[in-house]
Amino acid sequence: MTKIRAGRHGTKKDTIIQKAAALFRIKGFNAASMRELADSMGVEAPSLYNHIGSKSEILQAICFSIAEQFTTHLLWTEQTEMTGLSRLEAVIRFHIRMMLEHYDEVYVANHEWKCLKEPYLGNFLNQRRQYEKRLAAWVETGIRKKEFRVANPYVAVLTFLSALRGLELWLRHKKNFSADELKNDMVNLLLRGLIN
Amino acid sequence: MTKIRAGRHGTKKDTIIQKAAALFRIKGFNAASMRELADSMGVEAPSLYNHIGSKSEILQAICFSIAEQFTTHLLWTEQTEMTGLSRLEAVIRFHIRMMLEHYDEVYVANHEWKCLKEPYLGNFLNQRRQYEKRLAAWVETGIRKKEFRVANPYVAVLTFLSALRGLELWLRHKKNFSADELKNDMVNLLLRGLIN
Repeated sequence: MTKIRAGRHGTKKDTIIQKAAALFRIKGFNAASMRELADSMGVEAPSLYNHIGSKSEILQAICFSIAEQFTTHLLWTEQTEMTGLSRLEAVIRFHIRMMLEHYDEVYVANHEWKCLKEPYLGNFLNQRRQYEKRLAAWVETGIRKKEFRVANPYVAVLTFLSALRGLELWLRHKKNFSADELKNDMVNLLLRGLIN
Repeated sequence: MTKIRAGRHGTKKDTIIQKAAALFRIKGFNAASMRELADSMGVEAPSLYNHIGSKSEILQAICFSIAEQFTTHLLWTEQTEMTGLSRLEAVIRFHIRMMLEHYDEVYVANHEWKCLKEPYLGNFLNQRRQYEKRLAAWVETGIRKKEFRVANPYVAVLTFLSALRGLELWLRHKKNFSADELKNDMVNLLLRGLIN
């Protein structure tokens, strides 16, 4: 029987979670089974349970790890001295980086969170709401300081978040682009506008 | 037995299609049944078949009617004398209007098209690709004319389309906003940027 190997950057549990994220993204959480997960890793299903309690536990690990990374970055950005514009730029770049480097996990957190059970579901949605609220507060501050022009701060936040989320389609179709080109173009489009 | 009434603006078939769009959006095409559709209209299922051949036919009608409205608007805009910027603005405003006025149908065309059968599936995807291609060509022309600044025209097109699609989440959460505020903010954000 093949053993579960720890990856270069983590524990065996991390390896399971990464493989599960890829499986959940492709098949959906409900349709994916622990058996398939074991198969995709070339191990027997029971050996997964030495490292992880259940399929739901894996989904929780994925969703909350992603939520925590975004929240931590947001808080870090808030504590760093910079303009509202640079702050938003940092957030946009971080979203693109996360999407490029952790596509499976971000995708699962964006779509399969619906399969979380309480109290995890409520907790996750609450974190997401707080994240959007904080961003909206940044935009509101920028409007007050005449740094930004927009009537409704939530329109700005949801426009940004939707555009960034759209990278999923982008990555699925594997269009030709360099990561830097993508980051610079999106920052310019979303923050400076298209017009010369 | 209740009769299927024609709506103010269309035939009985149109009424069925509108009711079906609402049902498909909420339940998904695969999970929704003709029986439920009939129930939601207060009629018997067999009477639906006097007006429409099958559930698949309804999905085709929804997807192609939406695709046609977008394509027609695009072609109309292309034939009208205006700057590249005004052209894009017209498209953005049209997307928002369609989303606000035909939410169910646009949502179904955006998500449930996967349930179309061939040759409809290929035809639908082809129309969508052509639409994106035409928009990318507009942006490319604008770049050449130094009207727009962006390295990759597809990044601009997909950023716009994703941001506009994000209105779905927006409308689902029923945030407070006026349609005009939304349109003006999104046009400004996407075309002129956030910065004063």
